[in-house]
Amino acid sequence: MTTATTAVGALSALDKSKPYAELCALLRDAAVWKSVNATLSWDQETLMPPRAAPLRADQLQSLSGLVHEKFTNPRILELVNKAEADTALADDDTAKANLREIRRDYEKHVKLPKSLVEELARCASLGMHAWKEAREKSDFSIFRPWLEKTIELSRKKAECFGIPAGGELYDALFDEYEPKMTAARTAEIFKPLREFTVNLIDRVRGATDNFTKAPDTGNAHRDTPIDQQKLFSKRILEQMGFDFMAGRLDVSTHPFCESPGPGDTRLTNRYRPDGWLDSVSSAMHEGGHGLYEQGLPPEWFGTPLGDAISLGIHESQSRMWENFVGRSRPFWGWAFGLAKDVFGENVMHALDADKAYKAANLVAPSFIRVEADEVTYNLHIMLRFDLERAMVAGDLAPKDLPGVWNKRMKSDFGLDVPNDAKGCLQDIHWSMGAVGYFSTYTLGNLYAAQFWEAMAKDIPNRGGMMGKGEFMPILDWLREKIHRHGRHFSAEDLCKRITGAPLQSDALMRHLDAKVKAVYNV
Amino acid sequence: MTTATTAVGALSALDKSKPYAELCALLRDAAVWKSVNATLSWDQETLMPPRAAPLRADQLQSLSGLVHEKFTNPRILELVNKAEADTALADDDTAKANLREIRRDYEKHVKLPKSLVEELARCASLGMHAWKEAREKSDFSIFRPWLEKTIELSRKKAECFGIPAGGELYDALFDEYEPKMTAARTAEIFKPLREFTVNLIDRVRGATDNFTKAPDTGNAHRDTPIDQQKLFSKRILEQMGFDFMAGRLDVSTHPFCESPGPGDTRLTNRYRPDGWLDSVSSAMHEGGHGLYEQGLPPEWFGTPLGDAISLGIHESQSRMWENFVGRSRPFWGWAFGLAKDVFGENVMHALDADKAYKAANLVAPSFIRVEADEVTYNLHIMLRFDLERAMVAGDLAPKDLPGVWNKRMKSDFGLDVPNDAKGCLQDIHWSMGAVGYFSTYTLGNLYAAQFWEAMAKDIPNRGGMMGKGEFMPILDWLREKIHRHGRHFSAEDLCKRITGAPLQSDALMRHLDAKVKAVYNV
Repeated sequence: MTTATTAVGALSALDKSKPYAELCALLRDAAVWKSVNATLSWDQETLMPPRAAPLRADQLQSLSGLVHEKFTNPRILELVNKAEADTALADDDTAKANLREIRRDYEKHVKLPKSLVEELARCASLGMHAWKEAREKSDFSIFRPWLEKTIELSRKKAECFGIPAGGELYDALFDEYEPKMTAARTAEIFKPLREFTVNLIDRVRGATDNFTKAPDTGNAHRDTPIDQQKLFSKRILEQMGFDFMAGRLDVSTHPFCESPGPGDTRLTNRYRPDGWLDSVSSAMHEGGHGLYEQGLPPEWFGTPLGDAISLGIHESQSRMWENFVGRSRPFWGWAFGLAKDVFGENVMHALDADKAYKAANLVAPSFIRVEADEVTYNLHIMLRFDLERAMVAGDLAPKDLPGVWNKRMKSDFGLDVPNDAKGCLQDIHWSMGAVGYFSTYTLGNLYAAQFWEAMAKDIPNRGGMMGKGEFMPILDWLREKIHRHGRHFSAEDLCKRITGAPLQSDALMRHLDAKVKAVYNV
Repeated sequence: MTTATTAVGALSALDKSKPYAELCALLRDAAVWKSVNATLSWDQETLMPPRAAPLRADQLQSLSGLVHEKFTNPRILELVNKAEADTALADDDTAKANLREIRRDYEKHVKLPKSLVEELARCASLGMHAWKEAREKSDFSIFRPWLEKTIELSRKKAECFGIPAGGELYDALFDEYEPKMTAARTAEIFKPLREFTVNLIDRVRGATDNFTKAPDTGNAHRDTPIDQQKLFSKRILEQMGFDFMAGRLDVSTHPFCESPGPGDTRLTNRYRPDGWLDSVSSAMHEGGHGLYEQGLPPEWFGTPLGDAISLGIHESQSRMWENFVGRSRPFWGWAFGLAKDVFGENVMHALDADKAYKAANLVAPSFIRVEADEVTYNLHIMLRFDLERAMVAGDLAPKDLPGVWNKRMKSDFGLDVPNDAKGCLQDIHWSMGAVGYFSTYTLGNLYAAQFWEAMAKDIPNRGGMMGKGEFMPILDWLREKIHRHGRHFSAEDLCKRITGAPLQSDALMRHLDAKVKAVYNV
């Protein structure tokens, strides 16, 4: 049956090769099931009544098992072999890239037994429920058994995948989120960034009398009504080009983007009375993810060509919109006008674009990653990267996590963590079974900085446009260079294609240095 | 694996009989899949972005196919045969009832080919999308092809089930919603009610100068803020005993209740600025459905003992809460106090409990079924019952529906239908493929009236309690007499057990007669 989401015309390769067409249809069917899983996960985190948790765990377990079965169907391998040998596709680079990635996925999937996949899904669903309660009560003991189980199952999973040559167990997990990246290479890229960040924080510390003398931000963090904050987020997302006919914006504890498939990309945000600036950042962050999802070619849904490359590239999109656009001076030239429209001139009194810009860019050590400024943010990530790597290696027992976390917060940030809700319980990731994920945020910052510099050459008047709220040239550039390709290129190849260089930390350091100069004049 | 929703202790029959235990586990697994379908359907009608419609149709089609496969697994029949022969269950009436119904379901399911089930699901998902647009634009031509397809597929489905002895094609569809009920028997029960209703309307017409002189209701239909209406609905539902930890209340075009499974029962309502009284009725209606679902024994989830008997019995619950409780004078003694709390004394000025009661009970011909008064409501149902019966029989072509509908509205109600949105496009049911459903609303009214009279003997001070907002005795009675039994008894048997008589129209006519006397004094 022809599916309604299949575009006409773009798929000539499917007409040329029968095995390839059958393969893509098979994968599309599997992806439909995966999309059901995504819709239920979204519901679980936004709307589900608490007493539905046991049933939801059953549902997600069953779905994960079925999806795994679909992705490990031996027919996939047969068809890949046939399609690769099909001379009709000999000159089709796109089909070749697709087949390369389909083979890669299949070979990963078949390494996992279905029982483990189901157990992981069940543990993630119930573990997230426990994490929510633990976080609310700031009681690590509620989450501890689930963290232990999660690490244990993650290690099992990593063992099934197998340690890459010259690598470590953690790499096998990392590869799911950032294909081909390793812990060692990440640590190597992070090293100069870490040294630079510590120095930069010291520069700010010196200029601000140990963070007590901030630039004049006109008390920007004032109270505003939540409903107006929601509207403000929505207006900014619309301006960025997010299609609300094919998506939503809702509320959750932890902002996220879930995109079951074409036409259905869902963002969430969170709001505090005094948090309107934070809500802009997280709306733009999730919006960046959402635009990537909305920019993937729907006609390839279910195949790698219709999928995002890696979490690092995904984060490059979210962090670019959040930081390079949303924390820029030109952006606030436009956005502050909108803020006056939405919240009213009275509420925004004694504030202006420049002060709002500075308020969005204050640097100070803080407890919560998602509320951290652009400079200290990467230290939060490095902390999580080191600790999860140690847990997977067996060098850190989950029960010791709070103590080690708090010690590191003291040494890295000079902060005494008052409770675990503000410490090791703040993030949802481990409760969802996402171990090996965190470093992709900083990888995303690094990719974003490098892409942003490359984009400047193509859009010389970028600042002027942003100052008028014209973001379409940016979105078009991202669609052309990144979104439309799906997984045609690897992250590393894409980076070289766009920027002429492999991933490195220089561009981000240049960006942060300039930012601190602009805001703190040091 | 022991599922978290399985209660401990109540399931000794499962310990006694291995085939029965395996059978129930198999059905529970199938029900988990069905519950996924329900969650996605709920999402589709409440939150789904419009452009997700094609993907959602794919999802629901795949799910329906899989659920059908699970329900037609030949292992079910093997296990039913074994369990029925298992002497360990010889004295277990509950197990016997469960097996009787499991066999019945299985024998129905295997009559449908999977391809037809998938086609029906696809047609329902896309058809509902088209119906929404057609209704918005009041353009029947948008929905017409989908209605034609729906009737065609429904006839195919009915033919697969087969016409019951002495019955008609329509009965095969009817049986899915109201097992063992027939169109002929329904028509027979409806006949005296129809005559009585026409007379009753004439009495009101005479007393009100052709509906122009209503009783003094203090302009009860005044504007109130939507947010406060939502709160009012929620407070009433809480008072009725609806568990919001295991459910939700949201907004949709057409109010409904969807209950994927234990712990997850979702109601929707709709609100207009001048519709606070209507929103109370629909909240209580859907709440009645929700309480039935929340009252089913969760430990039997997936088997008939954990399921509702029929739509007629389901509607008896919704219509009882809506009409027998929510449109009673004692109820308004309590609810008007709550209305003053929620909306403010100022907004409720010049209104009192008695006027609100009368406003909720005005009788007048109108276009929209879900906004109809208790008396004319059944005429709306009879119209739909007759027309869908004619469409299934092939005596009425879907293309002729608007004309025939409007003619009947003229003869039954004396009304000229201004557009199809207020006519044959107003209801969601046919767009969802629910053909054979409508008469269960009036059957529900009839059951409700008969149950309500029986309840009076057990709760003599019912009026006094309702006047204080004490609804738990009513809910407890319903749970004890109806909810906890699942499908242990057939609708007819349950009715005889509770009321000592088969279903008939006398009790409802007594109730309506008394209501009109109280409100119109005729």
